[in-house]
Amino acid sequence: MSDTPDSAVHAYTERHRAAFLDDLAEWLRIPSVSAQPEHEGDVRRSAEWLSAKLKETGFPVAEVWETDGAPAVFAEWPSDDPAAPTVLVYGHHDVQPAAREDGWSTEPFEPVIRDGRMYGRGAADDKGQVFFHTLGVRAHLAATGRTTPAVHLKLVVEGEEESGSPHFRALVEQHADRLAADAVIVSDTGMWNETTPTVCTGMRGLAECEIELHGPEQDIHSGSFGGAVPNPATEVARLVAALHDTDGRVAVPGFYDGVAELTATERALFAELPFDEDTWLRTARSGAASGEAGYSTLERIWARPTAEVNGIGGGYQGAGSKTIIPSSARVKISFRLVAGQDPDHVQQAVQAWAEARVPAGIGHRITFLPATRPCLTPLDHPALRAVARAMGRAFGQKILFTREGGSGPAADLQDVLGAPVLFLGISVPSDGWHAPDEKVELGLLFKGVETAAHLWSEMAAALR
Amino acid sequence: MSDTPDSAVHAYTERHRAAFLDDLAEWLRIPSVSAQPEHEGDVRRSAEWLSAKLKETGFPVAEVWETDGAPAVFAEWPSDDPAAPTVLVYGHHDVQPAAREDGWSTEPFEPVIRDGRMYGRGAADDKGQVFFHTLGVRAHLAATGRTTPAVHLKLVVEGEEESGSPHFRALVEQHADRLAADAVIVSDTGMWNETTPTVCTGMRGLAECEIELHGPEQDIHSGSFGGAVPNPATEVARLVAALHDTDGRVAVPGFYDGVAELTATERALFAELPFDEDTWLRTARSGAASGEAGYSTLERIWARPTAEVNGIGGGYQGAGSKTIIPSSARVKISFRLVAGQDPDHVQQAVQAWAEARVPAGIGHRITFLPATRPCLTPLDHPALRAVARAMGRAFGQKILFTREGGSGPAADLQDVLGAPVLFLGISVPSDGWHAPDEKVELGLLFKGVETAAHLWSEMAAALR
Ligand SMILES: [Zn+2]
Ligand SMILES: [Zn+2]
Repeated sequence: MSDTPDSAVHAYTERHRAAFLDDLAEWLRIPSVSAQPEHEGDVRRSAEWLSAKLKETGFPVAEVWETDGAPAVFAEWPSDDPAAPTVLVYGHHDVQPAAREDGWSTEPFEPVIRDGRMYGRGAADDKGQVFFHTLGVRAHLAATGRTTPAVHLKLVVEGEEESGSPHFRALVEQHADRLAADAVIVSDTGMWNETTPTVCTGMRGLAECEIELHGPEQDIHSGSFGGAVPNPATEVARLVAALHDTDGRVAVPGFYDGVAELTATERALFAELPFDEDTWLRTARSGAASGEAGYSTLERIWARPTAEVNGIGGGYQGAGSKTIIPSSARVKISFRLVAGQDPDHVQQAVQAWAEARVPAGIGHRITFLPATRPCLTPLDHPALRAVARAMGRAFGQKILFTREGGSGPAADLQDVLGAPVLFLGISVPSDGWHAPDEKVELGLLFKGVETAAHLWSEMAAALR
Repeated sequence: MSDTPDSAVHAYTERHRAAFLDDLAEWLRIPSVSAQPEHEGDVRRSAEWLSAKLKETGFPVAEVWETDGAPAVFAEWPSDDPAAPTVLVYGHHDVQPAAREDGWSTEPFEPVIRDGRMYGRGAADDKGQVFFHTLGVRAHLAATGRTTPAVHLKLVVEGEEESGSPHFRALVEQHADRLAADAVIVSDTGMWNETTPTVCTGMRGLAECEIELHGPEQDIHSGSFGGAVPNPATEVARLVAALHDTDGRVAVPGFYDGVAELTATERALFAELPFDEDTWLRTARSGAASGEAGYSTLERIWARPTAEVNGIGGGYQGAGSKTIIPSSARVKISFRLVAGQDPDHVQQAVQAWAEARVPAGIGHRITFLPATRPCLTPLDHPALRAVARAMGRAFGQKILFTREGGSGPAADLQDVLGAPVLFLGISVPSDGWHAPDEKVELGLLFKGVETAAHLWSEMAAALR
C-alpha cells in the first residue's frame, strides 16, 4: 500500500507547497544587501529569520554565527545512524543590490508570483536555493519514515557572498571542527536550462579591483587646458583598452600562469550539451558572442579566465555638457579565474601591469577586494554520481554535466575542510541573477526540494 | 585744476566700488545654470535683473530678448556724435553647473569676498566681466564730461553660452539690424596672469558629442556571461583609447582638414610671453604637461585642435562591487577647433570614425551638441590696437598678446555682422572657470572697469 519513495516525496512536497512559498516570500522581503552599509541591519534580520525557520523545520541546532562582517547561519541535524557520513550544505542569505529604477517590473523586495515564477531579489540567488533544503529534508524524513536524516546534515549559510565572502574563510577556519564533513553540497549554482537538468562540476574564481586615476587636483576647464595635460578619464580608458589583446586574451603579463588547460574529455563533456548560440544569446540579451579566440562560448564562460569591466566612471555624467578635464576617473574590473590560477599572483600581476601604464602626471590607487579561488569537482568522485542520481529521480531525466562561470567560496570549504565540493543548483540562466526582475521557476524550485529529499539517502549509500 | 582722464576714471571707480560689488554679488546669487532644466527660471531672473540694472546704469534701451531657449539681454546707448562708430559688447549671463559637494569651500551661489577676491559661480565667467562694463561706461562719461558715450554702445548678453549657445546665431540673425556694429568687443576671456595684462586675439571652436554604446539589453552577471559577449564599457574605453595616436594627435581621419598651421610670427608672439611651465602646471593643478608632439604647451592650448573626455560612465559606480556586464556605457567628448576647421566636417568625421569602430553586438547612439566656430582677430586691425591702448592706460604696463583655448560664439558675431571681433577680458587662469571656488580678483575687476572706461574714446579715435 505504501508509495514508492519518489512519489511519496512528490506528494509531501505538493502538500506543503503554499506554506513553503509564503515562507520564502517572507524571507525575500528582507533586503539583505551585503554590499550596501545601509542594509547591515537587514542582513542580520535575514540571518535571524533563517535561524528561527531552521529550528521550526526541525534542525535541533540552528545558530547565528558572528563574523567580522555580516552574520552567517549554522544548523545541524545529526543522523541517528552513527555510521552515516556527514554532509555540509552551503548557501548564502545575502543578495545583490536592487532598486526599482534599475528596470524592475515590480519592487525587488516585494516578491510576487507571476506565470509560475516568483520574482524578487534573491529568489534564485540564493535564498530560493537555500530554502528548498528546508522542505527537502522534511520530505526525506516523511518519505523514508526516518526521524533523523540518513546523513549527519549540516548547513552553513553565509551573509557576505555577494561582497566576495571577505570573512567566510576565517569563519570556516574558526569553526572547522563543527563544519567538518565528508562532502560539501553547494546550492548556489544553476543548471543548463528549464528542460535540461545538469550537475555543475566547477566554478571560476574571482579577483576584483578598482583602479582610480587622479589628474588635476580639481576639475579644470577643457578650453583653457585641453590638449596640454593628461586626462585621467582618457587614461582609465587606455588601461581598459589595453586589458585585452586583439585575440581577446587578457593582456596582463603573468595572468595565465598555471591555468589548467581543457582536456579532450572535458571538451567532449561540454559538447554533449544541447548548446544553441542563438538561444544562449537571447538569454544573455546580447546581440553577439565574442571573446578569446580558439574557444567556444561554453569554454569561454566555464573554463577560461577573463577580465570584465563592471563599472567605469569619471567627470561629468549629467544632462547636457560640462567642458572639463575631470580630476579623477575609475574603473571596477573583475577577473574570473580557473583551476590552477592563484588569486594572489593574479592581483600582483594586475597591479604591476596597471602601475607600469600610468603616465607622468597621473596618480593612481589600486584596491583589491578579497578574492575567491576557482574550484573543480573530481569527475570520478562517488558523491558526484550520488548528486546526479538524486537529481535524476526528481527530474526523471538523464543528468548532464556543466561548469559554472560564476564564483563562490566553495574552494575555501574544499581547502579548509579537505572535503570534495559538489554542486546542486536548480536555477536557470533566464533567472536574471544580479539583474532586474530576478526570479525562480516554481516548477524547478520544487524539483530542487525533491532532489534535496532524495539526496541524503543517495549520499549515505555513496559515502558509506 | 581738472584731473587727467586716467586719474579721473580711477577716482570715479574707487568711489563706486562698494555699491558695484554689492550689485555684482546680488547677480551672482541667481543660479543661472543654463545646462540644468531646473534652473530655467533662474536664467530668466538673471536676464531680468541685468536688464533692470542696465537701465539704472543709464542705458536708454535695455530689453530682454526671447530665444527658443534662455533669454538674452540687449542694451543700447547711442552717442550724441552722429559720426561715432558703433561697438557691440558681448558677454553671457548664464553660468556653469555648481554644487557645494563638488569641492567648493563655500556655497557657489552665495558669493563671499575673501582676501581681495570675490568667490562664486560666475564671478569671472562671465557675470563679473559683463558687469565691469556698467561701471566702465559711467566712469567714461564722468571722466570725459560727456553725457553720452564716445561710441554708439551696444551690449548683447546671452543666456546659453555654457550650453554651447544653441540659439545665439539665430538670435543674431534675427536682430542683425539692431546688433550691427563696426567692431565687437567680447568680454568672456582672460589675460595672461595677475601681473601681465594681455589682449586675446583668438579663441578655439568647440564640437561636443556624446557616444552611448549599448550591449546586453540589461545588466547581466559577469560570472555567467563574462568573457563571451561584448562589454559596452570596454568598447567605450576602446573608442576613447583610439581617439589619439601615440604622438598625441587626434586619430580621427579628416579631423585636421583645413587647420591653419601656426606662422613663425605667431609662434614668436607666443614666445614673448613670460611662460613658465611649472607655474602653469600649478595653475592647471596638474602634475605634468603632455599633448601633441612637436608643439609647446601654449601652442597646444591656443592654436592646436584637441579631443578631451569630459565624462565617461557605465555600469556600477557605487560602493563595493557588482559583478555585472553593464548594459550600456557612454562618453562625452569635446573637440576644440582652430581657424580653418569646419565644425560640420569635424562632426561627420567623428561620427564615421566612431561608427566604424563599434563591433558586432554593440548598438550605438552618437549625438552632437550645437558647435561653436573658432575665431581669430586680424593682427593688424586698428581696433585691436585701441583695446591694447585702453588696457595699457588702465594697467600702466605694456600689453602683450595671447590667444584663448576656450570657445565662445564670437565667430557667429563675426560671420553674421561682418565685424571684427576683439577681446577684452581681465580674468586670470587661477580664477577656476567651470571649477569649484570660481573667483574674480577684485584688483583686476576694477582694472576691467577702467579699461572699459578708456576703451570708448580709444575706439572712437581708432575707427573714425
Ligand atoms: Zn549566489
Ligand atoms: Zn564664459
